[in-house]
Amino acid sequence: MPNSMQVGELIRKKRDGEVLSAEEITWFVQQYTGGQIADYQASAWLMAVYFRGMTPQETTDLTLAMARSGEQLNVRETLSPVVDKHSTGGVGDKVTLAVAPLVAACGVAVGKMSGRGLGHTGGTIDKLESIEGFRAGLSRDEFLDILREHRIVLAGQSDELAPADGKMYALRDVTATVDSIPLIAASIMSKKLAIGASHLLLDVKFGSGAFMKDLESARLLAKTMVDIGRLSGLHTVAAITSMEQPLGHAIGNALEMAEACAILRGEGPTDVSDLCYHEAAELLVMTGTVPGLAEADMRVRKVVRSGAALAKLAEVIEAQGGNPRQIEHPELLPTAPVRVMLRAPRGGYIAGIEAEKLGLASMRLGAGRFQKGDAIDHRTGFVLRAKVGDRLATGDALVEIHARTEDEAASIQETLLACYSWSDTLVTPGPLVCDTLHP
Amino acid sequence: MPNSMQVGELIRKKRDGEVLSAEEITWFVQQYTGGQIADYQASAWLMAVYFRGMTPQETTDLTLAMARSGEQLNVRETLSPVVDKHSTGGVGDKVTLAVAPLVAACGVAVGKMSGRGLGHTGGTIDKLESIEGFRAGLSRDEFLDILREHRIVLAGQSDELAPADGKMYALRDVTATVDSIPLIAASIMSKKLAIGASHLLLDVKFGSGAFMKDLESARLLAKTMVDIGRLSGLHTVAAITSMEQPLGHAIGNALEMAEACAILRGEGPTDVSDLCYHEAAELLVMTGTVPGLAEADMRVRKVVRSGAALAKLAEVIEAQGGNPRQIEHPELLPTAPVRVMLRAPRGGYIAGIEAEKLGLASMRLGAGRFQKGDAIDHRTGFVLRAKVGDRLATGDALVEIHARTEDEAASIQETLLACYSWSDTLVTPGPLVCDTLHP
Repeated sequence: MPNSMQVGELIRKKRDGEVLSAEEITWFVQQYTGGQIADYQASAWLMAVYFRGMTPQETTDLTLAMARSGEQLNVRETLSPVVDKHSTGGVGDKVTLAVAPLVAACGVAVGKMSGRGLGHTGGTIDKLESIEGFRAGLSRDEFLDILREHRIVLAGQSDELAPADGKMYALRDVTATVDSIPLIAASIMSKKLAIGASHLLLDVKFGSGAFMKDLESARLLAKTMVDIGRLSGLHTVAAITSMEQPLGHAIGNALEMAEACAILRGEGPTDVSDLCYHEAAELLVMTGTVPGLAEADMRVRKVVRSGAALAKLAEVIEAQGGNPRQIEHPELLPTAPVRVMLRAPRGGYIAGIEAEKLGLASMRLGAGRFQKGDAIDHRTGFVLRAKVGDRLATGDALVEIHARTEDEAASIQETLLACYSWSDTLVTPGPLVCDTLHP
Repeated sequence: MPNSMQVGELIRKKRDGEVLSAEEITWFVQQYTGGQIADYQASAWLMAVYFRGMTPQETTDLTLAMARSGEQLNVRETLSPVVDKHSTGGVGDKVTLAVAPLVAACGVAVGKMSGRGLGHTGGTIDKLESIEGFRAGLSRDEFLDILREHRIVLAGQSDELAPADGKMYALRDVTATVDSIPLIAASIMSKKLAIGASHLLLDVKFGSGAFMKDLESARLLAKTMVDIGRLSGLHTVAAITSMEQPLGHAIGNALEMAEACAILRGEGPTDVSDLCYHEAAELLVMTGTVPGLAEADMRVRKVVRSGAALAKLAEVIEAQGGNPRQIEHPELLPTAPVRVMLRAPRGGYIAGIEAEKLGLASMRLGAGRFQKGDAIDHRTGFVLRAKVGDRLATGDALVEIHARTEDEAASIQETLLACYSWSDTLVTPGPLVCDTLHP
């Protein structure tokens, strides 16, 4: 049982901007997770971290201590290389669903645990669960067995993984200490280290639809995570990508699942397809599978054309109890009873589509969660018929609304229109990938 | 029951340096005191206050909310003017024991609640309790009755007074949020506002033996408290005084009680006597009893010469159950069984006496508390035979040790000698009163 003065002294050190040792940080995390340090001391410490920040070494020590607070999968001891991929979340972000089978189809194993959606950003597991029979909750042995046999596994986040993070996040959530770069980085990376892949590609998003609202914060978060990777022996690369408008056309779980299949068939929207191919290619280069990005890109497009990528997704879906026919024939995925086309109220170029507002609108249709544990409707959402830079005439198709009822479809239209800004002159959307950070 | 998001939003506001409204602060204090806001949210908020500070209005709103969290005495409704006096604490600080009867003997009522000592600084109540029969724990009615009848009352701090402060202080103590000027100021002033005197004289000490280690922090704390007084309608003046060396000669409870009596008889050490007369004179001027400090000083010295001041102390002691003969004859106060004279190990001028170290040494003799609730020995302590600037020859009397046993007296000597620094050339001690802040 630590005495409260010892803990108080650690809080004071951080408050005064002193650097904590690995021993001090590890002790703090262990004692806190074990319930020997009170929440009121932990929250004061977290607020001190908010103001003082942490050095890369401190952040890494915190991450490692959190990673070691529960079950550790060490997947790289099963297979190597084995890659992991993480996105900080966005609207219409189905990239993981495509990148994982693309990479696996190129022969590199992918062991991935994903979370559920909360708020305006969707969750990979929710999208996968639009498939009949799909089972995300795997035991440790099932996870490793499927990974060994199929070289790909797409599981839900285990509660046993980095429990210190779960406990600390719940506390941060009610003490205004979420928005701290080292704490965000440690939270994400602790789960990655507990899984224990050999290579990790991060997709750090910025913009109106992302958690990081501007490029500079995204770059700082990316750098912090790449540093943690470097200092803890996990080869980490971070792509910094734009989330100013939704990614691709589909927003909503089954709709995005179908779009992921389209991307794997080479028939997806250009923006999101290119991003998926690029991220897959980065992973092939990172793991030394292919020497350069250009060649890697060719390899990726080859498994798209051959159908191997789509087949890989169907394979892992089947291995996890899902119906693979819904991958080969996405029209078999569940569909909403009501479809209403919203049309352009004016002519001109689309200047902007506010991703966050659109994500929140999709939640109102049942596609997302306001609170943890809310049930969601996999069928609902939107399909964007035009993106930023497209020129439309009044009355052209703008968004297809997939709703549970006519009323819900009608009541969302005003909100949807308010997500759009227009221009009379040519608008060119910015690049999706703005930067890539290497260790 | 407040929802945790509302509280989280208040924490975030303070974290981001926004100014909280009176309503927000009052709500926070009420809910926290009532147990509806968790400690972990309060401690995060306190740490945000530590970093962001508070405006004078916010600090006043916090103080008022704390003052209103429990019993309020409103003594100024009983008598007006009625003065209060507070010292931030030091070593050998018996000033309150002398100032209160000085002022009361000059016809101005004094309603005072004091705390017990903790750590190296002594508490006024502990000193008073060296008197046989003295009772510090008074009910609200007893307090007001004695004040009305004798125009002076010296009570212990009631637990019913500003309970929000008690609860918050206990939390601050274990979350490294004690050292925040607005929080310190609010803690002190909340109890003053709950008592409700019309005039308050603060003695804010700085130096090695004080809580504030330098003049600038003391000035900032003093200004913060004078601002709270101004914004809450309590006429407050703050003297900023030096605590580089102990005040007067006596350190220890009965020893200081005896020295307070000597001051009231005009036979005390010059430094502490002058400070007491000065503070009493300030209170006479503040309350409009006497137009200027010079005249006030004459009035104060007159009640010393006439014996009225000492008689006033004896009167209040008797009213509170104590033996007044111990005031008239301080040699009747309890004395330690062992007295040992420590002599100067070298010749020269005393350049410094480290007050904090000396206070800690007196604790080891039983005169103070290491932890709340520790029993103390009222008899033990030190009598300094020389102060900074005095010239001594080797072997001259330096400190008289009053101890429970020969062993304790012997074992403290090395520590005591280490408190002294020496000079071969003339040393002039700085002034005791460095500044006085008015509203």
